[in-house]
Order: sequence, then structure tokens, then C-alpha cells
Amino acid sequence: MRIKLINPNTTWSMTESCLKAAEGVKRPDTEIIAVSVRTGPSSIECFIDEYLAIPGILEEIIKGDREENVDAYIIACFGDPGLQAAREVTDKPVVGIAQSAMLLSKMISPNFSIVSVLDRAVKVTADLVDAYGMGPFCKSIRTTGLSVLDFSKDFQKGLKALEEQAVKAVKEDKAECILLGCAGFVDFVQELNRKLSVPVIDGVVPAVKFAEALVEMHISTSKNNTWGYPEKKEFTGFEYLDFKFKS
Amino acid sequence: MRIKLINPNTTWSMTESCLKAAEGVKRPDTEIIAVSVRTGPSSIECFIDEYLAIPGILEEIIKGDREENVDAYIIACFGDPGLQAAREVTDKPVVGIAQSAMLLSKMISPNFSIVSVLDRAVKVTADLVDAYGMGPFCKSIRTTGLSVLDFSKDFQKGLKALEEQAVKAVKEDKAECILLGCAGFVDFVQELNRKLSVPVIDGVVPAVKFAEALVEMHISTSKNNTWGYPEKKEFTGFEYLDFKFKS
Amino acid sequence: MRIKLINPNTTWSMTESCLKAAEGVKRPDTEIIAVSVRTGPSSIECFIDEYLAIPGILEEIIKGDREENVDAYIIACFGDPGLQAAREVTDKPVVGIAQSAMLLSKMISPNFSIVSVLDRAVKVTADLVDAYGMGPFCKSIRTTGLSVLDFSKDFQKGLKALEEQAVKAVKEDKAECILLGCAGFVDFVQELNRKLSVPVIDGVVPAVKFAEALVEMHISTSKNNTWGYPEKKEFTGFEYLDFKFKS
Amino acid sequence: MRIKLINPNTTWSMTESCLKAAEGVKRPDTEIIAVSVRTGPSSIECFIDEYLAIPGILEEIIKGDREENVDAYIIACFGDPGLQAAREVTDKPVVGIAQSAMLLSKMISPNFSIVSVLDRAVKVTADLVDAYGMGPFCKSIRTTGLSVLDFSKDFQKGLKALEEQAVKAVKEDKAECILLGCAGFVDFVQELNRKLSVPVIDGVVPAVKFAEALVEMHISTSKNNTWGYPEKKEFTGFEYLDFKFKS
Amino acid sequence: MRIKLINPNTTWSMTESCLKAAEGVKRPDTEIIAVSVRTGPSSIECFIDEYLAIPGILEEIIKGDREENVDAYIIACFGDPGLQAAREVTDKPVVGIAQSAMLLSKMISPNFSIVSVLDRAVKVTADLVDAYGMGPFCKSIRTTGLSVLDFSKDFQKGLKALEEQAVKAVKEDKAECILLGCAGFVDFVQELNRKLSVPVIDGVVPAVKFAEALVEMHISTSKNNTWGYPEKKEFTGFEYLDFKFKS
Amino acid sequence: MRIKLINPNTTWSMTESCLKAAEGVKRPDTEIIAVSVRTGPSSIECFIDEYLAIPGILEEIIKGDREENVDAYIIACFGDPGLQAAREVTDKPVVGIAQSAMLLSKMISPNFSIVSVLDRAVKVTADLVDAYGMGPFCKSIRTTGLSVLDFSKDFQKGLKALEEQAVKAVKEDKAECILLGCAGFVDFVQELNRKLSVPVIDGVVPAVKFAEALVEMHISTSKNNTWGYPEKKEFTGFEYLDFKFKS
Repeated sequence: MRIKLINPNTTWSMTESCLKAAEGVKRPDTEIIAVSVRTGPSSIECFIDEYLAIPGILEEIIKGDREENVDAYIIACFGDPGLQAAREVTDKPVVGIAQSAMLLSKMISPNFSIVSVLDRAVKVTADLVDAYGMGPFCKSIRTTGLSVLDFSKDFQKGLKALEEQAVKAVKEDKAECILLGCAGFVDFVQELNRKLSVPVIDGVVPAVKFAEALVEMHISTSKNNTWGYPEKKEFTGFEYLDFKFKS
Repeated sequence: MRIKLINPNTTWSMTESCLKAAEGVKRPDTEIIAVSVRTGPSSIECFIDEYLAIPGILEEIIKGDREENVDAYIIACFGDPGLQAAREVTDKPVVGIAQSAMLLSKMISPNFSIVSVLDRAVKVTADLVDAYGMGPFCKSIRTTGLSVLDFSKDFQKGLKALEEQAVKAVKEDKAECILLGCAGFVDFVQELNRKLSVPVIDGVVPAVKFAEALVEMHISTSKNNTWGYPEKKEFTGFEYLDFKFKS
Repeated sequence: MRIKLINPNTTWSMTESCLKAAEGVKRPDTEIIAVSVRTGPSSIECFIDEYLAIPGILEEIIKGDREENVDAYIIACFGDPGLQAAREVTDKPVVGIAQSAMLLSKMISPNFSIVSVLDRAVKVTADLVDAYGMGPFCKSIRTTGLSVLDFSKDFQKGLKALEEQAVKAVKEDKAECILLGCAGFVDFVQELNRKLSVPVIDGVVPAVKFAEALVEMHISTSKNNTWGYPEKKEFTGFEYLDFKFKS
Repeated sequence: MRIKLINPNTTWSMTESCLKAAEGVKRPDTEIIAVSVRTGPSSIECFIDEYLAIPGILEEIIKGDREENVDAYIIACFGDPGLQAAREVTDKPVVGIAQSAMLLSKMISPNFSIVSVLDRAVKVTADLVDAYGMGPFCKSIRTTGLSVLDFSKDFQKGLKALEEQAVKAVKEDKAECILLGCAGFVDFVQELNRKLSVPVIDGVVPAVKFAEALVEMHISTSKNNTWGYPEKKEFTGFEYLDFKFKS
Repeated sequence: MRIKLINPNTTWSMTESCLKAAEGVKRPDTEIIAVSVRTGPSSIECFIDEYLAIPGILEEIIKGDREENVDAYIIACFGDPGLQAAREVTDKPVVGIAQSAMLLSKMISPNFSIVSVLDRAVKVTADLVDAYGMGPFCKSIRTTGLSVLDFSKDFQKGLKALEEQAVKAVKEDKAECILLGCAGFVDFVQELNRKLSVPVIDGVVPAVKFAEALVEMHISTSKNNTWGYPEKKEFTGFEYLDFKFKS
Repeated sequence: MRIKLINPNTTWSMTESCLKAAEGVKRPDTEIIAVSVRTGPSSIECFIDEYLAIPGILEEIIKGDREENVDAYIIACFGDPGLQAAREVTDKPVVGIAQSAMLLSKMISPNFSIVSVLDRAVKVTADLVDAYGMGPFCKSIRTTGLSVLDFSKDFQKGLKALEEQAVKAVKEDKAECILLGCAGFVDFVQELNRKLSVPVIDGVVPAVKFAEALVEMHISTSKNNTWGYPEKKEFTGFEYLDFKFKS
């Protein structure tokens, strides 16, 4: 099968990190295509960033469906930007790394904490946790005060900052599982798993495994109502998005 | 003062209906500027539509701040698309018509129902109701089965469909206030208020009055954290959006 | 238009502070009448105080409707005592300062904290926050340990106590907006706004602006069911309350 | 021990019905004193009624503490009017019949429905259910469309109306226990228990038994903070309420 | 009347402590039978312990119904293990000590904290709090780090640990009532009540009083649906459980 | 890898149906072992049934860990009986079919309804939905009125009953995905998927795929606290359960 991993920002080094992680857990007969969006922000840290990433995500899904014979899609940003829109665009499964990480955590831990980037990301992330019904299981959303791109500039500094907050989440907030709240943190997951006494989960890995599972189950998105194809209409300025419309 | 009303879709007849309603309730010394987005969908009925409306909304806010000396903004679509991003872009107040309608209802009724367009809009609207903490007061979200643009094609048919669902909301769901779940329904509000035994609220009118109130109170959006200006970064494909960045 | 501001306690200096604040934001053609209740407590700090303030509030509303040609009412105590009963007594809009402050905050901040008087006020206030569906947005209710009347005795002590708790709410509880949890705090709002990095909101100001907005929209309380006029009956000991009954 | 049952309305026939029911279940060594409030409404059906009943309730509790050597109090109206204030006035246990009925139901049934009087009572009752954390267990609040006093005028008509709604609650709403939502319904409880396939609970009976239990456990209201005696202050117009103040 | 108190663990010293507490508050004409389960764990601290206690509880209830003429049952472990199953087995009232403690607290305090044994017990206890709708009133669940059996080994150490956490719950978490989160803590309740400024509640005492109250009200478990007798079927390995089946 | 599927009831025909479904979706290199519990009920329809199934489940997990070299476990009953205890017994992943079905549904549909057996199963199932935070997404739990074993007796009757309720869930409750609320319904899933316009999900299939995914990710249950191995203690009557204890 072919899975397309879409990094909703334009920083290709993050796309490559995600691809590497995905390659590490995929099955032999799975092919992963990884792309950065053609249009969008260089990193995603606020609502503006999230929304401006979405047209590019939809473009890659349309391309995946029309030209690349893709079986399932992964949106590789912990905000799961545009996930509901993405599920309207295609009938192929689309998974977000935040939702994947949270769903996985439910199978191995009674609760979780999320370690994230800047303070301002807390609301974006908390909105997501609530939208997925995960509020009762989320012990805390902790931030490092570093931006997304800071983490790629200084690995050791990033690792230390993540470890510090993760340890506090375990000790002070009683978290029994840590979710890494940024796709860029995929590089730190193995190191952190060695240092922490609880499982540390990155979203890319479960997203790959759940995408594989969905394809193998031959299950596709419910197109019956909410996530059906869009109604036939004009999209001025986005004519390059060749939507399949609801018939 | 000057208020800019942004219709997030490209259908100018809807923009004109909203402007007319706004003109009808604004104070003499308030000036209303009404625009449709330059880019975006011709109507908003699903998640794709919502998201593709947002770049155009942000563009109009930036223009309003830089060139038009605007004091407050109204996003005139009942999904309040991009409202949190809009509040990041500017420190001027930004109100959405859905939030305005719901906040108003809290001051005059113990509960409300929303009458909307297509079945698929229920989830978009319900997500919004929940995000605003209004779940406990929302008796039902009812749909007419007509699309946004159907309502402008046949006024009597639209009126009848809205009345039918509003009456059911009052009788069966015990709603004591009706919110019209689409900016395009502003043309029907007076007629419906004559027919129903409970208040019928359109969002454009309260949005204008709340925007005026916010400006007169000299209160602006909290820029301290979540809704601060975006972090300095590149937005490939959206270079025309001249963001003010967090310093 | 004429707005009647009812201070539910008998301390006229607080009534005057509220009136002064209201005068400062009202529009030129708005007239504010401010009264203390004829019967009731000298300050409101617990459930007994709240309930004993209500007959006096209802009396002032009835008088406002029968003799004073009032267009809208404000209950100027952060507990919004008797608000639902007040909306039963009249069809004119009635706003509470707590609800007004919370609704306003929703338009300019993702969350808020409330700074209040004594520890025992936390439950009264929290009950209100929950009743308005604002629980998810309320970061904390902090108390100064001073009584309502302490604040009028020593301005600097009061200011310092409020600032201290407000700063903690911002730093420790991550509040991005501060609501002043007592009508008597209206004297401190300008000073606090200068000192804090986030908006500080008193309830009197938004109550005035929302009351004006409601009157200009020609919208009145839904009398259809819950908040209809009371059923015809005897009120022994309260015969002076000349209710209009449901017909 | 001596338990004082306070009917918060002025209709003595209802007081007598409650007394009769209480006498029927009390233990031999329990003495029940039953009174109507001196001031208040003739029946309780809306927020105005609830609030105007409260001064009279507080008066009876003060009298009970000072003059009558009372061990525990019952507020015998299904709205539990002023219950939190009552717990501030005295350190003796105070139970409400609505809370008693709901607490009892938790020990014998997975859920309940409430059968009440007029439609407008639904909000009063629902607010109470939510305040007690019973929302998840309440299947429905059904109304008969009859007023409180209608039930005493025509027993058979009242019985039929209650039975009809109770049966619908069981069949349509899947209620497994019925709570009678008015103190006046105490006369119907035995008859209804014969007719229904699920337990029918009136609040007076459990209130008596819980009051007895509390006294026997020597447990009194937590006066430490929220429900402590009121702060020392003036209550203009209510000087006859001889409060014990917080020292 | 005859009440059977079932200690779901096999440690008879705890059964005796519970019996002693029960004897101390029961009425003269109440007879208490106290037993440990025949099969089950020596103490209950995790989910395994809870579940393995249940067959023994059901066995004692069946024996109570068939051979001992029991009027009501108490499950004397703060996890209320198997409470819903117990209510299926018999139509006699069954109360759990955790539910009893929480229901009692609602009548005398606006909130509570629970002091428990090991950290791992927090989830078991929190699940229960949520299942009973008590989440909004629970300020904290604090643990002593001691196991159930540690408390019987060193009374002073146990007392000190409980007091320390209870004091923190009052001071830091603003609890106004303390619930002792283990049946074994019944020995400490008097001492703790002397030391703390808020009521300290053990579950055994209210369970006895509520069981008495239920019997005196002649009210039994709703057998109509959820908690009806089990469907007729085989229980391999549990043939000694002589269930009454649904007819 | 080797996955052990445990049918918590003693009806081997159901075990075989589950095995067949599992075999149909497993990967070539996955081996499925399927067993019925040695002790337990012949079907699971109430709380008694659930609890009496648990010792047998724990026995099979212990055996799997000690003797069978199992990599992951599936509890194949839609009540997920003993799931938290099972996760205490082993550090290998344990998934329940109800949780698996609900988690899967979150990736392909905005909501779901559950179609179940007898009316009395609604509470068991609803408790589970709430415990997993899925309440906001569950449109309804519908019942067929047939018992678990009825479905194996008459395939066509069972199919018709399931289809009827599933269609109502889609039409009346607006469900966009149907979950089959009993392991025994696995035989009907293909037929129902042909008949319904929305995805129909059985829990066995996703449980297998998620178990495979968990093993491939090398992720195991968080043993740090709540779901750690049990404390060292005696289990009278269950000595055959050879627990690994917390060290």
C-alpha cells in the first residue's frame, strides 16, 4: 500500500525527519511518500499558521487521489490542521498525528500529558484535546518556551527542555504517558523513552500504523453526511484545487 | 467609528443583505464598510468552505488595519470561520456573528435553538456551540435541507422552510429563542419575528451592536499570549498577507 | 433611553461609584438612574446576602416599569442576584454585571480569571460561572481576603491586594483577562489596567453598553415560557411588590 | 430528636400533607414540627416564587435554633429554595426534599425522571439537577401542565396527569425511578407506587429519614468557609432575622 | 431489622473494625452481621483486587437472602466493588461505603476531598467519583503512600499520614469536608475529627444509617430493567452462586 | 507475532466466530490463538456476567504470558470486562473490542451509534462509552430486544433486528457509523455493511489490527503507577492465578 505523509509546513527537514520515523516502523510492503505543502507557513505555532497550512494540505490530498494512487493520508502536525476538511476531500482514510497519539495512549495508559513548544500553543492544543473527547484524560499541557524551529537548531538544548517538562508532567501532574506535541519532536522520541519511566509517544509512528491498519481493514471515511464531498460551488483563488463534488 | 463587515464568501448579494441589516441598526456616527473576500468559496456549508474562506478574511483585516483605519471587524458567516486567527492578526476587536448571536441570546432567553441549512452543517455548527461553552443552552440544531444559495433564489420557499423548523424547535424542542444559522438568513429575520412566539435572532445585528460597544469601551483583544501577533516566519504562497509579527 | 442601575446592597457610596463608571461610558442620549435597594444587606458576600437583596431588586424593577419609563435594567453586583427572577418581572432587558463581564471577555480573550473578596465568595461565584457555561474558560477564582467594605476604607490596600492576585492569576494560572468580582471594584479598574499586561474588566461598564445595545436592537426578554410573568398568586408580606401576572 | 419541616409557601394544607407523610415514616422518638412560612408565596412555580420564599425560611430556622431546640431542618419544596443560605444560618443539618429524593434515587436506581407541574418549572428544576451533579442520571423532566394548587383541587385529575407522565417517562425516556417534583405530590405517592412498575419517590419521606440519620450520626454542616455564619452586617428591612454572625 | 456488612477482603481485623463502628451508630433494634468474603484478596488496592472480591460479595448476598433474612446490605470497601452487580442479585437495598460517604457529604458541605492509600488507588477512586456524578464537588484525591495493611500495623504512623494529607486538602485544595478513602480508616475517624477544622467522614457510619433509612422507607432496588435479576444462564465455575433469575 | 483472543464467555461457537473474523484480517505472519474462559458465564448481558467473566480472563492472560509466548491480548466482549485489571496483570498490550471499535470510529466518522442486545445492556454500554470519553460522539445506544444467544439461533431474525435498529440510528439519530455492540455480531458485519449507507464496525477486526500495530510499535502498557503489577498479597480462592507482583 501507499501512504502519503503531508507535513503541513514548508520546512523540508521536518518532512525528512517524519519520513525517517515512518520508514522505521512501516511494514515492508508499505510505501511512504512524504511531502511538505507547496504553500503554507514555515512552522505551525498559532491559529494563523494552522489555517494557512490547510489549502496546501488539500492540494496534496487531491494530487494523491488523482495522480499518485495513495491509499491513506497522514497530516503530520500535532494540531491536525484541516483534518475534518481533509476527510471531506477524499474517501481514503486520513489520520492526524495528534489524534493518533491520543488514541494510542488510550490503549496503554490511563492518562497522558502533552509537552509542546510555546505557551501560545496551549490553547490550540487544548481545543484539539477537547474536540477529541480527551479532556478527562489529559493531565497537563506543558510548554518548553522554545519555538518549533529552535528544536532543529540545537538538539541537546531541545532534548533537555523536553525532558525537563516531561519529568515534571510525570512527577507533578501524575502523567503516566507523555505525548510529544509537535511533529518536529519525532527526533527526540527514542532518547526520551530511554530517560523517562513512562512511555513517550510521538504521533508519526502511530499515524503510520493506524493508516496501515485502516487500509488493511478496507474501511474508508463515512461519506454519508458531515464528511461527504463538498457541494458543487466556486472557490475563487483556489481553482487549482480540483475537488470531487457531492453528486 | 468605522466597522468593517467581512462576508467570508464571494457572493456579493449576501454582503449587501448584511450591509443593509447593519445599516439598519448602526448608530448615526458609525460607518460600516462591507466586503466579500477576494478569494474563497461562493457559500460556506462544510469544513472545506470554512477553511478556504480564511486567507481572504485575514487579507481584509490586514487591509483594514493598514489602509482603512478600521475600529472593529465583523466576520459575517455563522461558522465564525477563522475567528481566533483574526484575533491574532489585529489588536482591534473582532466579533463573529455566531458568537454574537449566542452571547445575545444568553441575555434574553434561558436557551436557544439554531435553524440552519444542510444536514452536513450540523457538525460545523455544533463544534462552534461547544467551543463557546453554549452546549448546555442549545436545545437543537435544525436544518431545512436547503443550501445557502437556495435561500436567495426563492424567498417564500426559504421563509416557509425556516418557519417550519423554527416552530418545531419551539414546540418539540422547547426552544425559547431562535438563532438563524446563516448570514444569508438576515433577510428573513423581521418576517420570522412576526410569525414566531419567541425572539428570532440574526447574528449580523448583534455583531454590529457589540462591535460598537467594544469600541466605545476602548477595549481591545488580549494580545498577551494566545491571540498575540504571529511569530516571525515565512508564509509561502501567502506573501500578500502583510502580517504584523510579534516583536 | 433610560437605564436603571440597581445596586442590590444598601451602601450608597457603592451605588455612586457604579453610577460614575456608568456615566463615563454611556452615550450622550442615554440617561442612567442609579439606586440602592430599599431593603437588603449592606454588602453581598454569601448566599444569605444574595437572597435578601432580591426583594429590593424586584421592587426597583417594578417601580422602573410602572413609574420611571425605564428601558433596561442593570443588577450591579457580581453575583447577579435574582437575575432570572428579574427577567420574569419585566419584559424589558435585564443584565447582570457578572454575566456582562463574562460575555465581554469571550469576545476579547480565550479565558479569564476572577479576583474576588473573601474565600467564602468562591462558591457563590463558581456557581454563577457554571450556570453561564463559562466553566471551561475560567482559569481561577482568586480571593483577596478582604471584605467588600474593606475596599472602600483603604484604597491603596485594596488596590495592592487586587493587583497581587491579578498578577498571580496571569503568571500562575495563565489567565489572559481579569474580571473584577465585585461591583465595588469599579473604582480600581483604570489603575489595574495600567498595571497589568492583560485586559482588566469591571462588569458595570459592559453592562451599560450591552443594555444600550439591547434597547437599540429593540429586543426584549423571551416571555414565552420560563421567564414569563409569574402565575397569579398571593405573596404574603410582599404585597408591596405589584407584579404583573401571566394572563 | 426534633425535626422542623418548613413548607416555603403559605398554603397550610400542603404543610399538613407533608406533616402527615413525615409522621408516617418518622421513628417513634422523633418529633416533627411543621410550619408554613410567615411570609412568601402561596405556591412555588417560578424564580420569583422561590426567592420570595427564602426570608420566611430563614426566619423559621432562626426561630428553630433560638426557641424550639430543633435538631435538623427540612425545606419542603422541590426547588430546595435557599438551601445554601439555610446552611449558612445554622450549624444544624438542613436537607431539601429535592436533594433528598435525588440522593435516595442514586441508591436504588441507575437513573430517574422527574414529573413536575407547569412547563416553566422545567428550568428551575433542571438548574437544581445540574447543581447537584445529577444531570447524567436524569432521563427527563416531564410536566403535567397543571399548577401546584390544581392538584389539591381535584385529586383524581391530578393523579391521572401524574400517572400519564410517569408512564411516558418509563416507556419513552427509559426512566427506572420516578421523582415527584413538588411537595404537594406527597399525597399521590402511594397510589402511584401501586400503578407504576418502577419506584416512585416523594422527597418528604427521604428528607425525614436523612435528617434523622444526620442527627444520629452527630454530624453537622461544615461551617469552615462557604457555609459559615454570615459576616457581621446590616440587613435593612430584615432586622427581624436575628442572625448569628461569624465571629 | 438485620443489616449485613460485607467486607470484600479477607482480613477479618478490618471486618471487626467496621463492625465496631457500625455497632456504635446503629439503632437499638438494628442487628448488624459482619463478614469477610470467603474468597478474595487480603486487601483492595487495584482493579484486580476489586474484581476478585466480587464473587465473594455476591455469594454473601445470596446467602443473606436465602438463609439469613437480611434486610439490607453494605459493601464495606471504598471502591464499592461490584455494587451494580450486587443490586442485580437481590431486591433488598445495597449500599456502598464510598457512595454513602459522598452522598452524605452533599448534605453538609459544598465539596470534599478524599484521602486514600497508594498512588495507584487514585484512578480507581476517581473512576468512582465520576460514575457517581461527584466530579464537580471533589477538590482532590490525596494519597498517603501507605498500603491498606500498613495502617493496621502502626496506628500512630497511619494517623499522622492521614492528618497530614487531610490538612493539605483543607489548606491547599480548599476542601471543606474530608472523606476517608478506605474502610480500614474507620479506626481513625474520631481522632481526625478532633484534629481537623472540617468534618471527617468515614463511609461505614453513613452506610449503616442509610441502610436503616432505606429499610424503614420500605424502598427496594428498581428491578425493572438495568438492575433486574440476571437472565437465566450457566456460570461455569461459579455454580455455588445460586442466583435468582429474571422470570 | 502471536495474539491471544479471549472470549470472556464459555460459548465456544462465539469464540470460533471471533477467530474466523480475526483470521480474515490478520497479517500472514500473525498467529491468533482464540479461547473461551475456563470459568464464567455462557453470555454477557449484565453486570454480574461481566464480573464473573474476569477471573477467567486474568487466568488466560497469565497463561499466555507464562506458557504461550503471547505478544498481545484481545478481550472479545463489547463490555471490555476487566480491561483495566488485565492491563495490570501483564505488560503486554491488551485491547478490548469495544474500545477498539470506538477508537476506530473516531478516525472515519464524526459520530457513532451502538446497536446492542437487551435493554438492560444500555447502562453497561453507556458506562463504557463515558469511561472512554466517547459520550459526546455517541448518538444513541439502540437495542434489539434479543439476547446474545438468540442471535446464534436464528441468523435471519438477528440480521433483520440489527438492520432495523441500525437504519433507525442513521435516520432518526443521525448516526454516521454503526458499532455492533456484541462480539457475537461479528457474523453479521459484512451483510450489514452491504445494507447500510454508513460504515458498520465490529470490534474484533479493529482489535486485531490495533494489537498488531501495538506489537509492531514495540509499545507496552505503562506500568509506572495505575496499571502496575498488583501489590504482593493473598487471593484466597484464586490461588490458581499466578500473578506477577510489583517488586
